[in-house]
Amino acid sequence: MNEIIARKKQGKRLSEEEIRRFVAGVTDNSIPDYQTTALLMAICWRGMDIEERTYLTEAMAQSGTKLNFRKVDGIKTDKHSTGGVGDKISLMLAPWLAAAGRKVPMISGRGLGFTGGTLDKLAAIPGYKIDFTQKELTTFLNKVGCFVIGQTQDIAPADRKIYALRDVTATVDEISLITASILSKKLTEDLDVLVMDVKCGTGAFMQNLKDARSLAKSIADTANKAGVRTVSLVTAMDFPLGRYTGNTAETWEAYYFCRKDSQYRRVAEKLYTTKEILTAEEAILKSVVEITVELAVLLLNPDAIKDKAKRLRAIETLLSLWESGALEKKFSEWIKAQHGDEKAFLGKAHKIQNAFDKNSKQEIIWVFAPKDGYLANADSRALGNLMVDLGAGRKKSTDTIDDRVTLEVCKAPGEYVKKGDAIIRIYKPNVSKNEKEKIEKIGQSAFTISPKKQKAFINILERI
Amino acid sequence: MNEIIARKKQGKRLSEEEIRRFVAGVTDNSIPDYQTTALLMAICWRGMDIEERTYLTEAMAQSGTKLNFRKVDGIKTDKHSTGGVGDKISLMLAPWLAAAGRKVPMISGRGLGFTGGTLDKLAAIPGYKIDFTQKELTTFLNKVGCFVIGQTQDIAPADRKIYALRDVTATVDEISLITASILSKKLTEDLDVLVMDVKCGTGAFMQNLKDARSLAKSIADTANKAGVRTVSLVTAMDFPLGRYTGNTAETWEAYYFCRKDSQYRRVAEKLYTTKEILTAEEAILKSVVEITVELAVLLLNPDAIKDKAKRLRAIETLLSLWESGALEKKFSEWIKAQHGDEKAFLGKAHKIQNAFDKNSKQEIIWVFAPKDGYLANADSRALGNLMVDLGAGRKKSTDTIDDRVTLEVCKAPGEYVKKGDAIIRIYKPNVSKNEKEKIEKIGQSAFTISPKKQKAFINILERI
Repeated sequence: MNEIIARKKQGKRLSEEEIRRFVAGVTDNSIPDYQTTALLMAICWRGMDIEERTYLTEAMAQSGTKLNFRKVDGIKTDKHSTGGVGDKISLMLAPWLAAAGRKVPMISGRGLGFTGGTLDKLAAIPGYKIDFTQKELTTFLNKVGCFVIGQTQDIAPADRKIYALRDVTATVDEISLITASILSKKLTEDLDVLVMDVKCGTGAFMQNLKDARSLAKSIADTANKAGVRTVSLVTAMDFPLGRYTGNTAETWEAYYFCRKDSQYRRVAEKLYTTKEILTAEEAILKSVVEITVELAVLLLNPDAIKDKAKRLRAIETLLSLWESGALEKKFSEWIKAQHGDEKAFLGKAHKIQNAFDKNSKQEIIWVFAPKDGYLANADSRALGNLMVDLGAGRKKSTDTIDDRVTLEVCKAPGEYVKKGDAIIRIYKPNVSKNEKEKIEKIGQSAFTISPKKQKAFINILERI
Repeated sequence: MNEIIARKKQGKRLSEEEIRRFVAGVTDNSIPDYQTTALLMAICWRGMDIEERTYLTEAMAQSGTKLNFRKVDGIKTDKHSTGGVGDKISLMLAPWLAAAGRKVPMISGRGLGFTGGTLDKLAAIPGYKIDFTQKELTTFLNKVGCFVIGQTQDIAPADRKIYALRDVTATVDEISLITASILSKKLTEDLDVLVMDVKCGTGAFMQNLKDARSLAKSIADTANKAGVRTVSLVTAMDFPLGRYTGNTAETWEAYYFCRKDSQYRRVAEKLYTTKEILTAEEAILKSVVEITVELAVLLLNPDAIKDKAKRLRAIETLLSLWESGALEKKFSEWIKAQHGDEKAFLGKAHKIQNAFDKNSKQEIIWVFAPKDGYLANADSRALGNLMVDLGAGRKKSTDTIDDRVTLEVCKAPGEYVKKGDAIIRIYKPNVSKNEKEKIEKIGQSAFTISPKKQKAFINILERI
């Protein structure tokens, strides 16, 4: 191991054999942590080329149990996002692709820090289960077409161990380590197609386009080399995505998104069919609609990334599944299959809705524009961290979550606001005076208001 | 700690406070090893400037007990060598400087790998003790003027811990870490003057002049900044130093060196006084004489590094102490003070001498020149490692040593040899056939014989 560390430290390429030995040693604890972290820092220093990344990813994927869907007919497809604020897109994609005949074996995670986690959003549904046997999962794919479950202890244990060490040794941000960490888990899903959503902006880990592009490319290259057809999008993550941030509200937003009579579908019709101009109210939903549709297109047919005709055909298919009610039906079917109680969940969601409607002075805090101007930018990271502070997310993995805490976006990116207009509203049961003041202060300073009219906001930054 | 690692990883300068916190955390075990090694690798990557090196050195020195010689009158002076093959120079310097009225509180180490350790050489003296109380050490300095003891558990414990981790994480070779490791121990000796001997060549850790020079400069700068007047020499370490390598023989060589009637003193007279040409036999001793005298000069007066008149005055003083017998008297006085049995030791040494004289076919292995030519170079590292294999040194810290195993140099660097002339001889009691073959093979390949006359070998490469 000393030799392996020395070679990487000198900037040499590690062999497949050396990388396998390292990952095996981490998994069976025969390599002490202090050697692992020295190697991790040497990797931060010298990097790993695409071959090394692939070896590392594959070795980590093979460190535990892999799912096996030989008994499933159809193309297995999944997407992964690097995490954002208000990112509930997986909850729409899983049933949508299942409705389109794809098989979606989705393993998701919990949130930590300013970004949310898909499992936390689903936990808002009473009864929803996330642990099933391989046999049950096969049945889900064959009968429903999708599932969204949690990562078990025996999936990529090397990644869990390495991630825990990276987290406390300032070695989280290295691109080959990020690539291997993300893909090692995805490679256990027995996928044919993977679509990567690398988020870029104030509310994302990648804060500039250069870093986001290089991660998107690294993941696509590595996954393709490992045998999974993979494409990546880099998408904007400056404003919170969609109308709501907060676990119950986001899951409700996903549920409502999928309905054939939803406002989201009308936005999609305008964007992709009629090309009508969006109202100010609809413009708030543009980003979440556009990013969801574009990811769904690539999940349905990754060739659409370069082929316009295939892209249009995929959009047509997807919109018709939405219009026909097949999407909303699949959503309910999936939640039911995983023991979720939709009715009880809607009851929870309506309580939040009611609080906003009645505008309870006790529990709804308004953040007003401090001056006239165009909404130029949002510090989504500050908003994400504020939500964590209010109990909507976790600072450390043992924290419990209040799934009722909700942030509602009231203005669209670029919209002209007048002093005193509400930009966002936040709901927190039994909010304290201190919390109110904090929300107002952080809420106001999170938004930039400019006297200049803004250029159109672009949601899809790169297609890789 | 994560923050400190992140800052160093980003190439930022650590503050005195951060470095102190790190060293304190290592010492009291509140920082886990995996964070320590990540920081060590980040230091290898980004380096540390002279301020950071000084903070690190001082914090490590303060991590345990420091000696205190307030009750000692006189200038306290010590030298440190980075380690070589046949380097017994400390054994001459300690009594020589004591004879000159200096106080020499020398803490030495054991050998590991191809370089020897001063304590291992002294262990060849029956009865010689290396652990004494602070009070006894004060008495030694006041009465004898020098001592050579071992490093106790409570001297710079942070260094011991960090060194053990560096050793298994390929982080041994970084210059600020080397500087801090060496100096943290020296700073516990309550010194006024330090002379550093950075060895450079095949038998040294630093194999090229650039690295050796930069370490010599780093140590001098850091130690001066920490308040100890320090100068450095870079000295050649291509041929084994002096006539013998091997613990008993080297200590005997040091003993004999110090005698007023020794061949070494005659060599010094020729070099510094009469300027007569050395015989071939005497040329073998030139390096050890020259390096010992030059180090002694600087220990006596560090200003001599730039001041020729002071250098000549120091040489004069030192040679007169040698000629008068004060040096040999001090040597015996020192050994006796530390409970060493000189007579028993000389008995051991004479047994080895006898083996060489009688040329026992059983135990003396000759290495012959394979062709005519000039002795151009030696691979001292290979010879050092051969000695370790034969039991004269340690591969791991728990190995025991056979202090009788001896390598004798029979030809001087640059000397013309004829095919079949002995270049070196090795003595090992009960040597096996395998060992004999190994000695002959490695011994022959370690020396380069050139048809071209060699330029004069330079022993003192740099004065810093």
